[in-house]
Amino acid sequence: MRVDGRAKDQLRSVHFDMNFVKHPEGSVLITVGDTKVICNASIEDRVPPFMRGSGKGWISAEYSMLPRATEQRNIRESSKGKVSGRTMEIQRLIGRALRAVVTLEQLGERTIWIDCDVIQADGGTRTASITGAFVAMTIAVAKLYQEKKISTFPITDYLAAISVGIDPELGEILDLNYIEDSKAHVDMNVVMTGAGHFVELQGTGEESTFSRKQLNTLLEIAENGIKELCLLQKTALAEHADLIGKRE
Amino acid sequence: MRVDGRAKDQLRSVHFDMNFVKHPEGSVLITVGDTKVICNASIEDRVPPFMRGSGKGWISAEYSMLPRATEQRNIRESSKGKVSGRTMEIQRLIGRALRAVVTLEQLGERTIWIDCDVIQADGGTRTASITGAFVAMTIAVAKLYQEKKISTFPITDYLAAISVGIDPELGEILDLNYIEDSKAHVDMNVVMTGAGHFVELQGTGEESTFSRKQLNTLLEIAENGIKELCLLQKTALAEHADLIGKRE
Amino acid sequence: MRVDGRAKDQLRSVHFDMNFVKHPEGSVLITVGDTKVICNASIEDRVPPFMRGSGKGWISAEYSMLPRATEQRNIRESSKGKVSGRTMEIQRLIGRALRAVVTLEQLGERTIWIDCDVIQADGGTRTASITGAFVAMTIAVAKLYQEKKISTFPITDYLAAISVGIDPELGEILDLNYIEDSKAHVDMNVVMTGAGHFVELQGTGEESTFSRKQLNTLLEIAENGIKELCLLQKTALAEHADLIGKRE
Amino acid sequence: MRVDGRAKDQLRSVHFDMNFVKHPEGSVLITVGDTKVICNASIEDRVPPFMRGSGKGWISAEYSMLPRATEQRNIRESSKGKVSGRTMEIQRLIGRALRAVVTLEQLGERTIWIDCDVIQADGGTRTASITGAFVAMTIAVAKLYQEKKISTFPITDYLAAISVGIDPELGEILDLNYIEDSKAHVDMNVVMTGAGHFVELQGTGEESTFSRKQLNTLLEIAENGIKELCLLQKTALAEHADLIGKRE
Amino acid sequence: MRVDGRAKDQLRSVHFDMNFVKHPEGSVLITVGDTKVICNASIEDRVPPFMRGSGKGWISAEYSMLPRATEQRNIRESSKGKVSGRTMEIQRLIGRALRAVVTLEQLGERTIWIDCDVIQADGGTRTASITGAFVAMTIAVAKLYQEKKISTFPITDYLAAISVGIDPELGEILDLNYIEDSKAHVDMNVVMTGAGHFVELQGTGEESTFSRKQLNTLLEIAENGIKELCLLQKTALAEHADLIGKRE
Amino acid sequence: MRVDGRAKDQLRSVHFDMNFVKHPEGSVLITVGDTKVICNASIEDRVPPFMRGSGKGWISAEYSMLPRATEQRNIRESSKGKVSGRTMEIQRLIGRALRAVVTLEQLGERTIWIDCDVIQADGGTRTASITGAFVAMTIAVAKLYQEKKISTFPITDYLAAISVGIDPELGEILDLNYIEDSKAHVDMNVVMTGAGHFVELQGTGEESTFSRKQLNTLLEIAENGIKELCLLQKTALAEHADLIGKRE
Repeated sequence: MRVDGRAKDQLRSVHFDMNFVKHPEGSVLITVGDTKVICNASIEDRVPPFMRGSGKGWISAEYSMLPRATEQRNIRESSKGKVSGRTMEIQRLIGRALRAVVTLEQLGERTIWIDCDVIQADGGTRTASITGAFVAMTIAVAKLYQEKKISTFPITDYLAAISVGIDPELGEILDLNYIEDSKAHVDMNVVMTGAGHFVELQGTGEESTFSRKQLNTLLEIAENGIKELCLLQKTALAEHADLIGKRE
Repeated sequence: MRVDGRAKDQLRSVHFDMNFVKHPEGSVLITVGDTKVICNASIEDRVPPFMRGSGKGWISAEYSMLPRATEQRNIRESSKGKVSGRTMEIQRLIGRALRAVVTLEQLGERTIWIDCDVIQADGGTRTASITGAFVAMTIAVAKLYQEKKISTFPITDYLAAISVGIDPELGEILDLNYIEDSKAHVDMNVVMTGAGHFVELQGTGEESTFSRKQLNTLLEIAENGIKELCLLQKTALAEHADLIGKRE
Repeated sequence: MRVDGRAKDQLRSVHFDMNFVKHPEGSVLITVGDTKVICNASIEDRVPPFMRGSGKGWISAEYSMLPRATEQRNIRESSKGKVSGRTMEIQRLIGRALRAVVTLEQLGERTIWIDCDVIQADGGTRTASITGAFVAMTIAVAKLYQEKKISTFPITDYLAAISVGIDPELGEILDLNYIEDSKAHVDMNVVMTGAGHFVELQGTGEESTFSRKQLNTLLEIAENGIKELCLLQKTALAEHADLIGKRE
Repeated sequence: MRVDGRAKDQLRSVHFDMNFVKHPEGSVLITVGDTKVICNASIEDRVPPFMRGSGKGWISAEYSMLPRATEQRNIRESSKGKVSGRTMEIQRLIGRALRAVVTLEQLGERTIWIDCDVIQADGGTRTASITGAFVAMTIAVAKLYQEKKISTFPITDYLAAISVGIDPELGEILDLNYIEDSKAHVDMNVVMTGAGHFVELQGTGEESTFSRKQLNTLLEIAENGIKELCLLQKTALAEHADLIGKRE
Repeated sequence: MRVDGRAKDQLRSVHFDMNFVKHPEGSVLITVGDTKVICNASIEDRVPPFMRGSGKGWISAEYSMLPRATEQRNIRESSKGKVSGRTMEIQRLIGRALRAVVTLEQLGERTIWIDCDVIQADGGTRTASITGAFVAMTIAVAKLYQEKKISTFPITDYLAAISVGIDPELGEILDLNYIEDSKAHVDMNVVMTGAGHFVELQGTGEESTFSRKQLNTLLEIAENGIKELCLLQKTALAEHADLIGKRE
Repeated sequence: MRVDGRAKDQLRSVHFDMNFVKHPEGSVLITVGDTKVICNASIEDRVPPFMRGSGKGWISAEYSMLPRATEQRNIRESSKGKVSGRTMEIQRLIGRALRAVVTLEQLGERTIWIDCDVIQADGGTRTASITGAFVAMTIAVAKLYQEKKISTFPITDYLAAISVGIDPELGEILDLNYIEDSKAHVDMNVVMTGAGHFVELQGTGEESTFSRKQLNTLLEIAENGIKELCLLQKTALAEHADLIGKRE
């Protein structure tokens, strides 16, 4: 049995607190078990230098943890004066994942800034960030569309992420919490669209390896988890649901 | 009339969400109008190098804003690679203020880390941080006391902070929100104990000045505001209320 | 009796070495007891980005200590690669204070850079910096006026600063030297105009508190000290004295 | 046809210049087509602080490109004063991959530093780095073993890496050069052991997605490519070949 | 006898691997005994801000060592986040030396970036860098000339550098390797043109001094060494040899 | 004629203000024409990590300019967050030069920190720093000797530095001021002992070269200038003059 009584292919309970912070164009607090991430989306009316004049928009993500989101207090990256490799990896991943379901030409020369701030961590913060960021981004983009600043809704599909891993006793499991993550031999993060296509696949056997057969099982339970997450996103985003993937 | 209908000497509504985050020894979300700050207190069993061997404890504070706590998105200080002068001023102020009501010898060689993370800003974030941090710190110190790691409860009095200012039309007002703060000729932050003693007084006439008479009015309305805040702290901390200031 | 034989409300001897360094538009070495600060004012014909196009000028200050201005050698901030919180607080204070007596619109889009470099420290370096910087700034602005680059003299009043504090034995005292400052329970810096209006008030009870009555005494002796400093500035600036505060 | 005439599942020519630099314990220049990486392995007789006293060794990797390894000159990371997110991702990947085939307990409290310096880049620098680093590490560890500083040879299997991707016209291809990489819809890096187990799998559909079927094809051609690379490693390491994976 | 059997005024063997890296406009690997430096020259069609509008070009150099170019592994400057004083001195020296033989007006508003990356170090890396950089720069400039982007060949003479020093037993010696350099009382680097004029002279008696007579001997053996190096450069650059110093 | 009427081999007027700052163990303000440098020497009772346990002392120098020491205001290196290459070169030079006349074994495990802070610059700041630093260091070391913390006076000779250069019209000149320095084709700094031995020789032909004959003339006028400076040091240090170079 899993430490919190779940089935091997069962998600933790997931909740979206819509419009959690008042200033951002899109804001949501995503809760996945005991993991809580504030996901804010901000629209800026210009793009980074390398995109200027391209006619295309951009999506850039930043990720951070409060120092005491974790069991042990971490030193703030602002105090250290530099962002860790782990943080950089995660924020590059979030941005890349979201860009896969947005037609950047239809955004115009705008940047969507995604800020994922983990206020409480219990495993799966990067996948919760992606799943929540999609919701915040959709709210923000829907505002642009309602204000007629863009004529086509550029989000082409739902997007969610989940972790899977191999537990030394239980084998392949879905949505690992911190205790499970610490013990797992293999850790994999999967990002998929509502239509079931892969966007990112990152599997690591830290001081371990995994077989093709194990990979197949991991991908199956991940796919089911992501389907469930996309349904929850659809419910949370009910008023914008018909816009997503609508192509004129 | 004030922009939000308050009387000149009226606080905004204040609320403490106790135990907001699960990991820290003390955690509270303080809400003052639309300003929201997560205040976490962490206990570390050692002190900074300059205090080692002194037999005394230390209290150190860090302050940060989520990038989109404000109307305009701010660049993260971790991305800039350095902490701004404003942030440094505020975190030095928070630490200094809390140390004024803690007998550091009674803490033993421990550090209390205070993390104030503003998730939504509408003026008065530094004073809300102090008022909330006092509550988080008290919860954390009460745990130490209950676990008998310290034999005397070292917090000697309540401590709260509030801003006052001079509005170009209304004159002296209490607890300025962001709009009021932007227009004010004079901005003053007052930190006081439950017994009504000053701990910090910082008044600034940015591109302006103020008279002794105006100062007196400002101090009076601040004192009343702080009394009210200390009562609210007492209610929120009800179970620990008899410990504060108790001297054997 | 005070450690150097002064009365409780007595300033240390104050001296201005005018035109101390040859290159700056305004330069003075201020000596307050054993505290010595080189104050240089430089005029730059443009303003920081956030002021461009505003038609207004700006005043920006930087503060530093030689490594061996103090009893113990300090590591250079350039070697550490960052400016300390204390330095940032002081340089923000100096700039803010000076801006309170300058009509920035009359400066035109120019920046006055104030550099305060402490070559010998014995307490009160930030207040000596402000008092000296006012003199250096006035010399520099007078040059602009004499060269007819500005048509109205934009400095509206004298400006000086002094520290006051509460000595554990003597009570409220004026202009603390380093030994007194180390022992003081309360430390307050007051910045005032020649007309006796407050510009800044920063009082701190480090690990201590102070009452309203003590505050009143501190403010009175500070006010007298500042009056005296403004007279000394007037003498030093004799040739420009009729320009200050002159309004067409 | 591919731009350089290769079959879709064909590697570029691969060469190992053994003992390329004289000082390191292990050194090899790996050439994969026009990609050239100097891989040096250094043995240090201590481990990072977080490993001290564990009795286990550690493997840490650093990766860098000469400024003109690429078509356009890149600014040096030392001049910028910080390491990019891309570099951090790659060096974390290299270290993690190598650790999967080394029994760290058998290394003793030693660190193997892997330095991968790209002197010429034409796609696939991170996978070439891993493949070359394995060879450099093996030479260095063999020295430790020959000098009897370790009693069991701790490397358990061969390890190599390759990129696969989806070309918009050709579909799934192996070992992308820079031109192919720039056009590819999907980019995947695969790290595998000589026994055919996965160590890392990182697939990204930058502004695109991929199906389960495409994933399967990618994994098949990657697996064959890695088998071939491990044979080339075995030839290059002929004198140590019987040590790898030998368990007493 | 010298440690490697050379005469006191004998160079180590010197070799130029032309076009060592494929992307740069000019590239050479210089080998001087066991010292190996990749020298790349890149042409950029703009100059640094302080040169803009001057009509003149600029030459800027960067120098780095691979971490394991030396007997002991050095920490990467990119990881430390800053460039050492030694590196800065060397790169300033390389740039300054090359600028002495280039008529910058004839380059037009272009920057030649010189990158000297030491892959193996055995003494004399800065002088080898200069000698090799001259060759790389000449190849790059010859391309500009052949492409008719510049109408006059701006390189006015050959340029090479060598170290000389005073060995405690042998006295004045030429081209010190690492062992010799470690023991030498005096260390001098000489940069000269093909015509025998001095460009730079840097002599240091670390914890020692030297007489005028010793200086004279050092300069004589340096001059002969540099003549020899310029002949080797001429051979390596045979196809461009008639361009150097040709004045219309 | 030179711009200030001096003969080609004539020093500017030189003055030492002894004990300029009160806290350091040794302090002097050196004035060379319009160049003014505060030179402070501090004794620290330990050495840098790389010297620990060696039984030897160390001398480390730092150099800085006030922002407005020059005609144009320079940005502070502490604000930029890094020390420039020029500053590093100068401070390495000062330390190296002083170490040549101190028997480090006789210092014991102590560091002498030399701080050279230029308050007004008119050419020759690095050579004035060395000449002044020697005086400050001697005062500090004499204190150690008088307090019997060291039994042998470790300073073996006087040490001074001067610049020479080649003026396009006047030829070889001594002690260049800023205007002369800006025009000079060749710039050379010479550091010599009282006995006339070279310690450092740094000659640079920025965008120019120089012949052996010119070098000889430069060295002759430098030698005479340094003799004169050492006499002035001897007069300023009269009370310690018999200690220097005294060997038991």
